Amino acid sequence: MSGGLDFEGWTCPVPLRDTPTVVMGHGGGGAMSGELVEHLFLPAHGTAGNTVLGDSAVVDVGGARIAFSTDAYVVKPMVFPGGCLGDLAVNGTVNDLAMAGATPLYLSIAYILQEGTPLTEVRRIAAAAGAAARAAGVRLITGDTKVVDNGSGDGVFVTTSGVGLVAAGVEIGPHRATPGDAVLISGDLGVHGVAVLSVRAGLEFDTAVSSDTAPLNGLVAAVLATGADVHVLRDPTRGGVAASLNEIARTAGVGVSLEERRLPVPGGVADACSLLGLDPLEVANEGKLLAFVPRDDADRVLAAMRGHPLGAGARRIGVCVPEHPGMVVARTALGGTRVVNMPIGEQLPRIC
Amino acid sequence: MSGGLDFEGWTCPVPLRDTPTVVMGHGGGGAMSGELVEHLFLPAHGTAGNTVLGDSAVVDVGGARIAFSTDAYVVKPMVFPGGCLGDLAVNGTVNDLAMAGATPLYLSIAYILQEGTPLTEVRRIAAAAGAAARAAGVRLITGDTKVVDNGSGDGVFVTTSGVGLVAAGVEIGPHRATPGDAVLISGDLGVHGVAVLSVRAGLEFDTAVSSDTAPLNGLVAAVLATGADVHVLRDPTRGGVAASLNEIARTAGVGVSLEERRLPVPGGVADACSLLGLDPLEVANEGKLLAFVPRDDADRVLAAMRGHPLGAGARRIGVCVPEHPGMVVARTALGGTRVVNMPIGEQLPRIC
Repeated sequence: MSGGLDFEGWTCPVPLRDTPTVVMGHGGGGAMSGELVEHLFLPAHGTAGNTVLGDSAVVDVGGARIAFSTDAYVVKPMVFPGGCLGDLAVNGTVNDLAMAGATPLYLSIAYILQEGTPLTEVRRIAAAAGAAARAAGVRLITGDTKVVDNGSGDGVFVTTSGVGLVAAGVEIGPHRATPGDAVLISGDLGVHGVAVLSVRAGLEFDTAVSSDTAPLNGLVAAVLATGADVHVLRDPTRGGVAASLNEIARTAGVGVSLEERRLPVPGGVADACSLLGLDPLEVANEGKLLAFVPRDDADRVLAAMRGHPLGAGARRIGVCVPEHPGMVVARTALGGTRVVNMPIGEQLPRIC
Repeated sequence: MSGGLDFEGWTCPVPLRDTPTVVMGHGGGGAMSGELVEHLFLPAHGTAGNTVLGDSAVVDVGGARIAFSTDAYVVKPMVFPGGCLGDLAVNGTVNDLAMAGATPLYLSIAYILQEGTPLTEVRRIAAAAGAAARAAGVRLITGDTKVVDNGSGDGVFVTTSGVGLVAAGVEIGPHRATPGDAVLISGDLGVHGVAVLSVRAGLEFDTAVSSDTAPLNGLVAAVLATGADVHVLRDPTRGGVAASLNEIARTAGVGVSLEERRLPVPGGVADACSLLGLDPLEVANEGKLLAFVPRDDADRVLAAMRGHPLGAGARRIGVCVPEHPGMVVARTALGGTRVVNMPIGEQLPRIC
C-alpha cells in the first residue's frame, strides 16, 4: 500500500451483511470489530448515534465525575512471557480508565471457568490479578464466578470492569485531537502481541520478547502533573497503533502523519513481524500509550514520560494535521508515503 | 434431613482440596461456589478476611456513595420461555445494585462470542439487553467484544457490570439481619430455573412456566419509600432461597425459621421439581427478592410490595430468630422441622 495516497476516506471493506456468523475478525479490534459495534450492538442496544461503547465512559454520579470501563479477556495461552491472563485483565481496565484521565479506584472481576481446568491454574491467574491490583493501587471489590462444561469454554475467561474518578478540568478524549498536536508514544511497539505469539503452538520462534503488560495510571499521573493540556490518551491494544490512530483520526476528523523511521520497533518484534508477515503498527501493546498534546507542551510531556519507568522510551512519532482527515499516513524511510489502514480483521486471534 | 436438628453449625462438606480441577458445582452458587471464593479467590486476590466479592460493593467515590456490581452470564439455552441471555444479564446486574439499596444508573456489557454463532442470535440478545436497560431506566454506556474460536466457547457469554447511587441513610446488607425481623418474599419461587430446564434437551416436560427475569429496582424503590428500616434485601438467584437465606444467616450469625406451608410454589414448579427430584427452595429466581424487615414494619412493606406489579404475590414466609445461629430451619406442613441446607454444588448447571 505504499505509493499513491487514497484520500477518499475509509469505508469498511467487509460489510456486516456479508458475514452471517461471528468470525474471528469480529474480535480483532479493527474494522470488523467496529462494524459489529456500529451496525449490530449500538442499534440493538438502542444507543445508535451515540459514541457509547468506547473503551470507557465518563458520567456524573451523585456529583462525582466517574469513569467506567469494562473488558473481557480470552488470551491464549493464559500464561505467556511477561505475564498472564490475570495481570493482563487488571492492567487493561486500569489503563482504559487512565486513558480517560481518571484515577482508577475500584475493579470488579468476573471469571468464566471451564470444567476440568486445574485449580492451580485458576489460582495462578487470580494471584496475578491480585498482585496487579496492588501494584496499580486499585482494589478488587466485587466479583462473580460461572462454570461452563467441558467443550464450552477454554480454561479461564476474565472480565474486569472498573470505576475511577476524573478530576475537575480534565477533559481527555479522541474528539480533542487537533491539527498541530504532537503525537507521542511512551515506548517500544508490538511487544505484547509478539510475546503471546512466541508461545503459541506451531508459531514458536527464537525471541526474548516479554509482554509489556503494565498499569499506566502512574505514567498518566506524571503526564497530567506537567499541567499540559493533554488532548488524547490511548493505549494501543488490539489492532495496535494503526487501529488507535485511525479511530482517533476519524473521531476528530483530523489527519495523522507519522514518521516511520521514528517508530520504536525493537529487534525481536521486527524479526517476528518479518517472519510472520505482520505490521508492527498492527500488533497489540498492553503497557504503552499514545498521547496527543499541543506542540508547545510536547517537550515537557516527553520529559515527564521519560522520568517514569514505563515511559523511558517515550518519543515523538508524528503530528496531527488538517490534511487527509480521518486518515493516517506514514512517511517511509525511503522518503515516500503510505496509508496506514485500519486493520480489517484478526491477524492475531485471542491476543488479549 | 427431616427429624432431629444438627445445631453444630455448617461446615463445607466438600473441601476445595478434594477437587483438583474446576467442576460444575463451583458455579452453582452453593457451598462449593462459596468454597472457591473463600479458599481460592480471596486469598489469591490478597483480599482474604474481607467480605469482598459479594454480589455488590458500596464505596465512596468523590463523595458519592456508589454501588458497584458484576455478573457473568452463561445460561443455556440462550433463549428460554420468558426471556433470554440479554435481558437476564441486564436485569441481574440491575438487581444486584438494587439489593444494596442503590438506584442503578449505568451498565457496561462485555460479550464473548463464539466463532460461528449466527449474527441474528447475537442481535437478538443485544436487542433484549437494550430493551431491558430501557425498562429498568439504566443506560448501557460502555462495552467490549471478544471472539473465541469454535470449540472454545458456546454461543454468547455476557458479563454486565453496573454502578448505582446509594442515598444517604440507606444501609442494607446481610449483616443487618436481626432476630425478630420478618422474612418476606416478593412472589412465587423457582420459576426461572424451571423455565430454563423446560427447554433443555432431554428434560422437556409439560409446563407453562416462564422465567420471572425482571428488574427489581422499581419494587425496591416502592419498599424504601415506606420509610421502613429495611435490614436485608437479596435476590435469590443461583442456589435459590436456600442459598440466600443460609448466606444471610451465617453472615449475621442469626437463625432463620421458615414456615414451609407459606412458601409460594406454583403448580408448574412443584410438578417439575417433583419429577426431577429438586427442592423448589434451591431453584433459581431472577425476578424475586427476599426482605428482612423489623416485625413492626412488615405490614406496610408487604402492602408496598403488593402495590407493585412485581410484588403482587408478596408474603411473609418466616422470621429471623436468635436460635440456631447460621442455620435455616423450616417447619414442615406436618408440624415437624427440617434443616434447609446450603446447596452443595450444581443441581442446575448454567441456569444463569
